[in-house]
Amino acid sequence: MQRGFGSDNHSGISPEVLQAIAQANSGHAIAYGDDECTLRLRTLFKEVFGSAAEVYPVFNGTGANILCLDTLCRSHEAVVCAETAHINVDECGAPQRIIGCRLLPIPTPDGKLTPDLVLPHLHGIGFEHHSQPRAISITQPTELGTIYTPSEIRTLADLAHSRDMYLHLDGARLANAAAALCLSFRELTTDLGVDILSFGGTKNGLLMGEACVVLNPTLASPTPSPSDTTPLLRYRRKQMSQLCSKMRFLSAQLEVYLTTNLWQRNASHSNHMAQLLKTSIEQLPGAEIAYPVQANSVFVKLPTAVWKRLQQRYFFYAWDEAADIVRFMCSFDTTESDILSFTQALNEELCKK
Amino acid sequence: MQRGFGSDNHSGISPEVLQAIAQANSGHAIAYGDDECTLRLRTLFKEVFGSAAEVYPVFNGTGANILCLDTLCRSHEAVVCAETAHINVDECGAPQRIIGCRLLPIPTPDGKLTPDLVLPHLHGIGFEHHSQPRAISITQPTELGTIYTPSEIRTLADLAHSRDMYLHLDGARLANAAAALCLSFRELTTDLGVDILSFGGTKNGLLMGEACVVLNPTLASPTPSPSDTTPLLRYRRKQMSQLCSKMRFLSAQLEVYLTTNLWQRNASHSNHMAQLLKTSIEQLPGAEIAYPVQANSVFVKLPTAVWKRLQQRYFFYAWDEAADIVRFMCSFDTTESDILSFTQALNEELCKK
Amino acid sequence: MQRGFGSDNHSGISPEVLQAIAQANSGHAIAYGDDECTLRLRTLFKEVFGSAAEVYPVFNGTGANILCLDTLCRSHEAVVCAETAHINVDECGAPQRIIGCRLLPIPTPDGKLTPDLVLPHLHGIGFEHHSQPRAISITQPTELGTIYTPSEIRTLADLAHSRDMYLHLDGARLANAAAALCLSFRELTTDLGVDILSFGGTKNGLLMGEACVVLNPTLASPTPSPSDTTPLLRYRRKQMSQLCSKMRFLSAQLEVYLTTNLWQRNASHSNHMAQLLKTSIEQLPGAEIAYPVQANSVFVKLPTAVWKRLQQRYFFYAWDEAADIVRFMCSFDTTESDILSFTQALNEELCKK
Amino acid sequence: MQRGFGSDNHSGISPEVLQAIAQANSGHAIAYGDDECTLRLRTLFKEVFGSAAEVYPVFNGTGANILCLDTLCRSHEAVVCAETAHINVDECGAPQRIIGCRLLPIPTPDGKLTPDLVLPHLHGIGFEHHSQPRAISITQPTELGTIYTPSEIRTLADLAHSRDMYLHLDGARLANAAAALCLSFRELTTDLGVDILSFGGTKNGLLMGEACVVLNPTLASPTPSPSDTTPLLRYRRKQMSQLCSKMRFLSAQLEVYLTTNLWQRNASHSNHMAQLLKTSIEQLPGAEIAYPVQANSVFVKLPTAVWKRLQQRYFFYAWDEAADIVRFMCSFDTTESDILSFTQALNEELCKK
Repeated sequence: MQRGFGSDNHSGISPEVLQAIAQANSGHAIAYGDDECTLRLRTLFKEVFGSAAEVYPVFNGTGANILCLDTLCRSHEAVVCAETAHINVDECGAPQRIIGCRLLPIPTPDGKLTPDLVLPHLHGIGFEHHSQPRAISITQPTELGTIYTPSEIRTLADLAHSRDMYLHLDGARLANAAAALCLSFRELTTDLGVDILSFGGTKNGLLMGEACVVLNPTLASPTPSPSDTTPLLRYRRKQMSQLCSKMRFLSAQLEVYLTTNLWQRNASHSNHMAQLLKTSIEQLPGAEIAYPVQANSVFVKLPTAVWKRLQQRYFFYAWDEAADIVRFMCSFDTTESDILSFTQALNEELCKK
Repeated sequence: MQRGFGSDNHSGISPEVLQAIAQANSGHAIAYGDDECTLRLRTLFKEVFGSAAEVYPVFNGTGANILCLDTLCRSHEAVVCAETAHINVDECGAPQRIIGCRLLPIPTPDGKLTPDLVLPHLHGIGFEHHSQPRAISITQPTELGTIYTPSEIRTLADLAHSRDMYLHLDGARLANAAAALCLSFRELTTDLGVDILSFGGTKNGLLMGEACVVLNPTLASPTPSPSDTTPLLRYRRKQMSQLCSKMRFLSAQLEVYLTTNLWQRNASHSNHMAQLLKTSIEQLPGAEIAYPVQANSVFVKLPTAVWKRLQQRYFFYAWDEAADIVRFMCSFDTTESDILSFTQALNEELCKK
Repeated sequence: MQRGFGSDNHSGISPEVLQAIAQANSGHAIAYGDDECTLRLRTLFKEVFGSAAEVYPVFNGTGANILCLDTLCRSHEAVVCAETAHINVDECGAPQRIIGCRLLPIPTPDGKLTPDLVLPHLHGIGFEHHSQPRAISITQPTELGTIYTPSEIRTLADLAHSRDMYLHLDGARLANAAAALCLSFRELTTDLGVDILSFGGTKNGLLMGEACVVLNPTLASPTPSPSDTTPLLRYRRKQMSQLCSKMRFLSAQLEVYLTTNLWQRNASHSNHMAQLLKTSIEQLPGAEIAYPVQANSVFVKLPTAVWKRLQQRYFFYAWDEAADIVRFMCSFDTTESDILSFTQALNEELCKK
Repeated sequence: MQRGFGSDNHSGISPEVLQAIAQANSGHAIAYGDDECTLRLRTLFKEVFGSAAEVYPVFNGTGANILCLDTLCRSHEAVVCAETAHINVDECGAPQRIIGCRLLPIPTPDGKLTPDLVLPHLHGIGFEHHSQPRAISITQPTELGTIYTPSEIRTLADLAHSRDMYLHLDGARLANAAAALCLSFRELTTDLGVDILSFGGTKNGLLMGEACVVLNPTLASPTPSPSDTTPLLRYRRKQMSQLCSKMRFLSAQLEVYLTTNLWQRNASHSNHMAQLLKTSIEQLPGAEIAYPVQANSVFVKLPTAVWKRLQQRYFFYAWDEAADIVRFMCSFDTTESDILSFTQALNEELCKK
């Protein structure tokens, strides 16, 4: 398949990750997360996110999100999110089916929630006819490629906590935000009051590796009964079919991702490529950058005929057909040459117009 | 970790599989199953299981099972299975939570259903107060290591079809049954009337790779509406968080597994090792083989104190504590030396008794 | 409790209904809907709604709605509705929990959907990541007291059918719309292309009596399997705990409601009272009618302090606190004297301002 | 319809109940349970069941059971029950669909659980692959018409509590057990350690009236969040579509049922009739009483041809077709004359044999 800008899922595996898998492939290891590599990973996540952090590796982003939301709320409760949130539009209704809860999606100009947008939805508390808001869910960077500042996250966390609610962060591309802001993962989550995190690695060079990370210790500790010390999340992960049997091979990927700064190298590179792509496209008459380019995605408004012809040559998603906005994603393996070929093709199509 | 007989999930990845992953790691590929490797896999499964077969790769066995059952029945319907079935005891209630259906578990002497066992549960048809039996689910080989003969499966398929029901086969270790019976996958499933299959590879040398395989074309064809040609299973797989983004890496594993006869080599080896283990244990006074050893598991009845001491030295599961029956599993990488060390340790503990 | 305008649920039972219950209380009757009264009711609904109509009495409006939606769609599908719809805001997330489907709520000026509002949500067909729109759900009269014209409903039905979708009508107060429009129930539903109906009686003089009415015969006929003639809806109604054991007492209410024109007498009266209330309020300086008064509800914009003080004297709902809009409901038993006392109290509070 | 012994649901409404409904039909009352009658009922249930008791009226027995179980456990947990339990066989899988939990049904000789039967199922605690047992559910009187002694219930409650589990009692016919044992409701539930109760009235003379009664205050108190004092059960009842709008008419029935000893008069009568029926049948050669007759049901073993012919004349359920056991139920309105006619008909059929 032609190299392109369809998705950061279209790129493959970082060589370091493949090597880590090969190295983990030695001898026997207990299944389902009681292996040595996963034990090390649990300590590692505490180092990275703070001593209260508990990591639960899962298969994919949807799995991480529903496990996080399942930890925060029950079916009669509601999750406030941006209308563009992955949990709202791109999981085929998984939160509704698996958790049974209601989502309260809010239109936003840039994919970001603010207290002003959230507050009007926090009513009807105690009224049995209404789903009760229990969590705010944000995506960092957002599905539109914008990035919350630390203080914006802190403000939402404070709002949530002042209303007995929790803050969930969908971090499928958290590395891109951290790299862009020059912050550590902890500074971008735990330190800002995030309660629970969907931590993603797949889009940034792993074969497959996501995790539910519990940051708020009051969420991690509750067990179902005094005589059972197994955390609730382990049962729920299993029941949602997100428990990997040969977990060492998920954990080994996440380990090399965090211990060698691979997350930062890959994310910085794809962010940088996005800036380059943006700059290249800006110079083309007829193309218009639709949202601020802050991470590794570039949204562009193009004439209808242009993007439709370009789709004949490259695979990419029409993000908002009605508005003629398309999405180009850069990856850890995007090259300057990729950008050159692509913008040249785009230019050709624009000239044909 | 010490090598042992705790589970076939404790072994790692076959070298051929790791190599196939590395080879698939080239350039870009469309995500979510529209890549070239997965397209080849779709053709390959038709070659292996018959031209009507449709394969849907998923992450793990629980995922495959719930996707299969979800295809067969709705929440007001019931699935007849053995009391020992994985779907009944080892999925933390996933079928109940995700599908909402009822299971009708039946006690069996050897993990195998028979028409005589099933028939008494097929009543109340048309009575709205009762969940309606819609599927029979069998495991091959069973959770007790026994194997259905082809004619036993055919008989259950005929019974199911005569009652407007379907036959599901949980084939997490299907390769072990096929190798033991010297039959092809098709001869063991499609040709016997199996309607839908959970096909497993993880326990037999893959990093991770299972699939829902639809064999009955009437189950594969229905799409949600005349104007939508996307099969229903694709939506349901996505909603159950079983859709892999970089699917080429799952498909590449299943491809090498089937095209190079790796499945057979690995399964034959682990079956052979199980026979060797069984023979070795049989000679030890005080140990008693609990079920016929037909695949890669060996169930042994041991004095309570013996197996408890042995668990201090080796990791394995007490299958039925009350009956003092423990389970030893052989893997594709089990060696004669592994067996020698292990039976020696067992012998030591038996002598201490 | 003081008589007032809090809800049409605050009124009691029409005398004719109580008498019908007493008359039905004679001797024995088969439970669960196989009694003679319910059999008559099935014929009666065919007379009222057309020969294809199938009625399934249930306990309450939420029960009727979820049974209707459950008949139309599965969990990976979506229901388009107005943001103000009862299914969206007033059922504590029942559709999400019980059906697991996604709702696509749309802001409207007056509680009414239009093709222009609906169309932008009918995209992503065939894209497995998105819940697939399968139904449009409207409320008649709407939760804001407005009424769809027959042609508006026909247009929505046509749109739905042209997209392989269905039209559901939440008719908790359908009698009020029919009375206001001087149309029969059939002219207002079946004849306009409505596929399935939540038919309500409780708010219009019954003790309790709602029903799921299947109007589109393709929805009524499917049974789970060739050898079972019991309609799917019977299983689903039972499973949702909406199957009444002594159903004759539900059916007797619905029977007298339809056969004696009680529905029309009661609805016309409450509609008339709403007009009277509206006229009385319009004359009060400081009170502003918020939506067209077309059925039995009157929404009024009042100064914050006024409606808060009035709530000390009368029970009613602040419909939109932020906008200072409150809701007054008229019932079949509302009297002119009730209106006089109430508007006098309102006037007193307005003068205090 | 002919009077008979098909079900205690086939009888109608006690005159006192109909009168109470008529009396409650006066003026306006707040909907959804905030009316004066329901407030009185809350106090009344505290008087009857103890000061901690909280009553939540619902529509039917299935509704009461799922609300009770939903209060006790989440989807990854399991409920131990008799194989014959209503929740297991007669609710079309409602617990699985609505709660998503697993049931652990146990074969019993007489419908009654004992610690010896329950204990083997209380294993795998802390093992994430297994649903965790959280509740024991018993029916009093059982579905087979047998009655637990107080000490048998106490023993099961103690077992449950010693394992961090709860005891649920399905009391759809609790009045029959209380009348038979000459005990108060409290002596039969709260005082024996029952944690939560499905309290039934419909089968004993009400039009419709069941309730979830929380007896263990630790279950009643938890609210979703510190700033919301609405009990969790109110949200869950609403979401399960079990919240009655004109609740005064449910409450008025339960009130007259308890305050006038109607429950006892009706239950004593039907119990007495069952004894009479049993005695009459015992004298017929070829009929054999199948289970001890302790409440208002009589199970009889009859020749196949006999009960099939009798079903042509009377409506009743073949309880266990394979074993030729049929069920005859007595009601509050059963007369000696009913028994005479019925046993005469049975005798005729027996003689034809």
